Amino acid sequence: MRLLFIGFGTVVQGLSELIIQKQEQLKAEYDLDLTVVGISDMFKGSLYSPNGIDLKQALEAVRNGDLKSLPNQFAGDAPAMIAEADADMMVEATYTDIKTGEPATSHIRAALSRKMHVTTSNKGPVALFLPELKKLADENDVKFLYEGTVISGTPLLNLIRETLAGSHISQIKGILNGTTNYILSEMEEGKPYEEVLKKAQELGYAEAVPDVDVLGWDALAKITILANAVFGVNMKPDEFACEGITNISNEDIARAKAEGKRYKLIGSLKRDDDKVVGRVGPEQIDLSHPLAGVMGATNAVTITTDTLGDVTIVGPGAGRIETGFSILIDIIHAGGKR
Amino acid sequence: MRLLFIGFGTVVQGLSELIIQKQEQLKAEYDLDLTVVGISDMFKGSLYSPNGIDLKQALEAVRNGDLKSLPNQFAGDAPAMIAEADADMMVEATYTDIKTGEPATSHIRAALSRKMHVTTSNKGPVALFLPELKKLADENDVKFLYEGTVISGTPLLNLIRETLAGSHISQIKGILNGTTNYILSEMEEGKPYEEVLKKAQELGYAEAVPDVDVLGWDALAKITILANAVFGVNMKPDEFACEGITNISNEDIARAKAEGKRYKLIGSLKRDDDKVVGRVGPEQIDLSHPLAGVMGATNAVTITTDTLGDVTIVGPGAGRIETGFSILIDIIHAGGKR
Repeated sequence: MRLLFIGFGTVVQGLSELIIQKQEQLKAEYDLDLTVVGISDMFKGSLYSPNGIDLKQALEAVRNGDLKSLPNQFAGDAPAMIAEADADMMVEATYTDIKTGEPATSHIRAALSRKMHVTTSNKGPVALFLPELKKLADENDVKFLYEGTVISGTPLLNLIRETLAGSHISQIKGILNGTTNYILSEMEEGKPYEEVLKKAQELGYAEAVPDVDVLGWDALAKITILANAVFGVNMKPDEFACEGITNISNEDIARAKAEGKRYKLIGSLKRDDDKVVGRVGPEQIDLSHPLAGVMGATNAVTITTDTLGDVTIVGPGAGRIETGFSILIDIIHAGGKR
Repeated sequence: MRLLFIGFGTVVQGLSELIIQKQEQLKAEYDLDLTVVGISDMFKGSLYSPNGIDLKQALEAVRNGDLKSLPNQFAGDAPAMIAEADADMMVEATYTDIKTGEPATSHIRAALSRKMHVTTSNKGPVALFLPELKKLADENDVKFLYEGTVISGTPLLNLIRETLAGSHISQIKGILNGTTNYILSEMEEGKPYEEVLKKAQELGYAEAVPDVDVLGWDALAKITILANAVFGVNMKPDEFACEGITNISNEDIARAKAEGKRYKLIGSLKRDDDKVVGRVGPEQIDLSHPLAGVMGATNAVTITTDTLGDVTIVGPGAGRIETGFSILIDIIHAGGKR
């Protein structure tokens, strides 16, 4: 399987490490021989070689700066690479723009039209254009996969598609943002919001401008993806109510705890016939619920089914290797023989 | 896909209800058209019809007694049915004998040799003979699936096979028995063991002779299956240490709680190079661990991977429809087009 990397940031670097490390295992278990033929990165430079790029060399080069001193330089930009490359699957990992979905959406459209499978961990195109992109993939008889867009490599979308197949899902409810879960967990110790946020920023959990996390926008993008992916609707982020954690005080948290409850920022979706309703907001979760015990930067989702009742999956929601794995599992599903 | 039911107890009745209810969905989503051609049950009677048995009629008949008044009677026993039936997949659901694995193992060998896929929720053959049965399935180019043998329909084995593909698993650790988890949960309220056990028996969670659950044997069968299925070894139940919950007192539980811990009956497996070590026994789990919050008859397993760190799945560990679903998902994996 010939891969094309559009974007060569931390996630694709994590993926590259996994590919190097698991080369033999992938061949033995899934008859999957992965060759990276192209890398295109706006800042780090671009390489193209139909015979395969030396990934170890590329990783070493970016660690020391960029790809610009390596052999097999490619002069064009990402659209030119996608138009010219001979590849079976594109990994789209440019920056996320949740308002326009660009430039990732254009890259994905171009690759699908050229009959490449596509995997992405970029929430923009999936939250905004999933039905269209799915249709385009179907028309070209290729796969459009996006496991990493919701709680990273923790296999939520695959769990629903592969292992709950045949089940009717009526509700999805979860802790979809690790940063806010870390903040709420720490606030339970009595530390004030501002102090905890500062620590989260120092740890790299929160951005300098923390709005995407603390106002609930990241979780909102994820419930939009889940609504469209799992329930097959065509909804936009602004169709869901969204509230963050900035109005929750230490007193609120203490009061909830005294009543056997714990505040969590919850993203939830309910299916009612053909209608889907959802919201993001702080909720008081009973301590006996599996979501209540999920502390720190961990994510978790409870899926309510007709066959099994509630099934909950708990795992990491971010990380270089973790998100790299979400892309690897999509590659295995697209190209591996099992 | 033509199915053969060996055993027509509660689990296969649950499966039958799901098949009736989901007929159209299975056809639309997985191009899967299920026909039951044979049912063989030692007590309820046997039917065979190459054109398909009326499942609704069969369910109604067993609710009122047995199958013996229905058309399409089959005179032979289960081995005769397996030898003669024209079927694509056998559902093995006779009684569980964890010491010998019989008669289920003989049924499975016969069906695999006749190139039928096999699914079972029977722990006996899988705990005792998995490597042999897997090999026989491979030789005959058919599938041997057994999702329901470990924590019922909660998709643990499928999660590992389908959604953690490519990951190296170093440890598996979980609450594999709902009865003992219910008992320990109730004992935390200060109720003595004997009182809680009696209530569990009244609720149908525990047998009149509760040894299989409370002495840890059920969890032992499950870790044996997990060791062989996930780590590819060939181990027997007696190679693992096993202790039940009968030595845990209310005082032990209170003392653990005071230290921020909770007693759980844990089945655990660790891989160390090619060696697998495991045990079943009570452990004090830190309250911050996802397994600690799992209360009542629910099951949960934490899988430690090189790609994602810890991933935990929480769900039902028993139930008629839940275990029926574990068989349906195996049927979809064997025969559905996705």
